Amino acid sequence: MTAPAEESPAATGNDRSAATRARLMEAAVTAFAERGFHATTTRDIASAAGMSPAALYVHHRSKEELLYLISRDGHQKTLDLVRESLTQDGTPTERLATMMRRFAEQHANGHTTARVVNFELAALDPEHLAEVMAMRHEMDTLVRGVIEDGVAGGEFHVESPRLAAAAVLSLGIDVSRWYHEGGPGKPDEISAGYAEFALRIVGA
Amino acid sequence: MTAPAEESPAATGNDRSAATRARLMEAAVTAFAERGFHATTTRDIASAAGMSPAALYVHHRSKEELLYLISRDGHQKTLDLVRESLTQDGTPTERLATMMRRFAEQHANGHTTARVVNFELAALDPEHLAEVMAMRHEMDTLVRGVIEDGVAGGEFHVESPRLAAAAVLSLGIDVSRWYHEGGPGKPDEISAGYAEFALRIVGA
Repeated sequence: MTAPAEESPAATGNDRSAATRARLMEAAVTAFAERGFHATTTRDIASAAGMSPAALYVHHRSKEELLYLISRDGHQKTLDLVRESLTQDGTPTERLATMMRRFAEQHANGHTTARVVNFELAALDPEHLAEVMAMRHEMDTLVRGVIEDGVAGGEFHVESPRLAAAAVLSLGIDVSRWYHEGGPGKPDEISAGYAEFALRIVGA
Repeated sequence: MTAPAEESPAATGNDRSAATRARLMEAAVTAFAERGFHATTTRDIASAAGMSPAALYVHHRSKEELLYLISRDGHQKTLDLVRESLTQDGTPTERLATMMRRFAEQHANGHTTARVVNFELAALDPEHLAEVMAMRHEMDTLVRGVIEDGVAGGEFHVESPRLAAAAVLSLGIDVSRWYHEGGPGKPDEISAGYAEFALRIVGA
């Protein structure tokens, strides 16, 4: 056994491989966000990551696999954020405000990734799309849940919690479409303003 | 001179040409919405419209020209709707509610076109993009204007009319992304609910 600080040749190989995969993912996010999935070639991604197209295929079977990994990771991060915010202690008002603040901030700061994650779904293979749609459905259910809690407890006043959940999620998702440096508000102003808007939508 | 009801051979030719162009636009909207601009070939569009790729080029110089025409017409219709709603007689509350109701309804009923119009902007040539962005900017200015009017008159209570305008437009635009038959609400329920949400966002 080697001490944790020491690297066996195999571990070094794994680390290098992980670093290469991370570099490929980053290059793919940038290319997909700029040109769209279909207009991007594997050659574009490989050269942005400083490797040959053949070397890319050592790590990923296809361009779609890269999109799937970006999409899955992105959805997982957002789902974790939504779940953590909505299952914490606190009133529905506090939980919804935290969720919206963090959601909007993530979609402003991470707008490049979020654009790919939200607007390239149609390019996913059917089984990958189904996996990602299940995560989106879970987010939707969680947000609807906190709104229904708020209505039941008399804190929120809204006719259709389902439509209000769609509106609240729309606000956050659409930040990734319109956000740009120099646009209306910095990420912290957007997230504070949007937390307030979410509470207003549900009639808090 | 011929009576208006009669058609000269030249007029018949023009009518046929207009009908062909309309058929091509319709085929292009469907294809771009389903597959995205870059994954669609001129051959796809031509065959959906029942003609050869060569015949398509008689009417349009390029696939991008079709996208530009779809995008320009779509933006013009939405801009007209926003301008008409916001410059009518009525209080800022009435004008904003009418705008949001009609905007959401248009983006639900016309979600296929609205998806292409809103989410394929990156595929436009720079001068076409500039033309369309000017129309988007005008919409933004109009919406911000009615919110500022409402704040000035004490009807609305919102810290940043600019951020509230972004949120209100986001709600409407994002309907075209999530709307599907069988989703949360029919177009008239969405438009009524969203008019209420827009008023809540601005603190009416």
